[in-house]
Amino acid sequence: MIWYTEYLTFHTSKLREFIYITDKIEKIVRKSGIKEGFVFISAMHITAGVFVNDAESGLHKDIEIWLEKLAPVGNYFHHRTGENNGDAHLKNLLIGHQVWLPVTNGHLDLGPWQQVFYAEFDGQRNKRVIVKVMGE
Amino acid sequence: MIWYTEYLTFHTSKLREFIYITDKIEKIVRKSGIKEGFVFISAMHITAGVFVNDAESGLHKDIEIWLEKLAPVGNYFHHRTGENNGDAHLKNLLIGHQVWLPVTNGHLDLGPWQQVFYAEFDGQRNKRVIVKVMGE
Amino acid sequence: MIWYTEYLTFHTSKLREFIYITDKIEKIVRKSGIKEGFVFISAMHITAGVFVNDAESGLHKDIEIWLEKLAPVGNYFHHRTGENNGDAHLKNLLIGHQVWLPVTNGHLDLGPWQQVFYAEFDGQRNKRVIVKVMGE
Repeated sequence: MIWYTEYLTFHTSKLREFIYITDKIEKIVRKSGIKEGFVFISAMHITAGVFVNDAESGLHKDIEIWLEKLAPVGNYFHHRTGENNGDAHLKNLLIGHQVWLPVTNGHLDLGPWQQVFYAEFDGQRNKRVIVKVMGE
Repeated sequence: MIWYTEYLTFHTSKLREFIYITDKIEKIVRKSGIKEGFVFISAMHITAGVFVNDAESGLHKDIEIWLEKLAPVGNYFHHRTGENNGDAHLKNLLIGHQVWLPVTNGHLDLGPWQQVFYAEFDGQRNKRVIVKVMGE
Repeated sequence: MIWYTEYLTFHTSKLREFIYITDKIEKIVRKSGIKEGFVFISAMHITAGVFVNDAESGLHKDIEIWLEKLAPVGNYFHHRTGENNGDAHLKNLLIGHQVWLPVTNGHLDLGPWQQVFYAEFDGQRNKRVIVKVMGE
């Protein structure tokens, strides 16, 4: 049984940004040497997410608008602590912060349009994502 | 360690539909032979979901109305590509596309009302779900 | 390979409540003896959730208000069965009912602010959570 862990670090120039990471995950799976198993991808911050969807820029704009509609920037009780990122916490909860990708016959076993993205909701500083592979 | 993978294919007659799949998952777990472990169920499409909840038709109507309210059919940037299913992508993100079920002593270790459903948001064509079992 | 399962039971005094459980999960991981692997935490009910976020009371108030806004108490088709907890089912779907925590070098491999919470949406009675550890 192989357990292999790496950490990705992101430092976005914008406050909110979606970053394509399927290629990074593929590389880590290859490095781990597993042929059967899973790779776990999880944001280590509570104001960022990880999601699987289409790599289409129009759709990403739609997702951004949708997240802002359902989890808007605003006045939150959380801000009494001096923070100003209450919306980023809710966006994290809405889109989720962890996904699993199955690995079969040495390849990520994804559907034709499934791509993985890191979703930054409070960027412009270092944020980490754990990528943990298990398998044989 | 056992790794066992099957793919389910759905072709719904309606555009949107929830399909009960607990029995199919149970059968796959039994076939895999594991007594301890997990089964991973993940839609391989970005316009479909998988969720766990009650098998009650009124509730399913509520869930459908709720998804439509929070991720409505509408005009999306994504449609500039010729697609018309922007809402289905958002519904996928809202309800999630993957769940894990624990297996203990040879049985799905679920609570009394937990049932698994495939959620189609853009059907009337073949869509796949990966079911991957790991355990001993 | 170690598989270790425990069940937590919650009986909240309020109908809705968030309960800090990181310490309970840590204890179970230690008891399991694994140094590398994962712990799976999943509500066994369809009117409760499990989530990872900040342990900040103002934010928890924000999350509660946000859940009520997006999945409000109301009249649901589900109530025709005699139930009155339709909103709790939707809150479960919104926040999710299962999370995985990675374990590396014998410790929960979490970011600095990541804490785990049980989210009760229809309490005042016994509800169970499965905690299943796998690893080596």
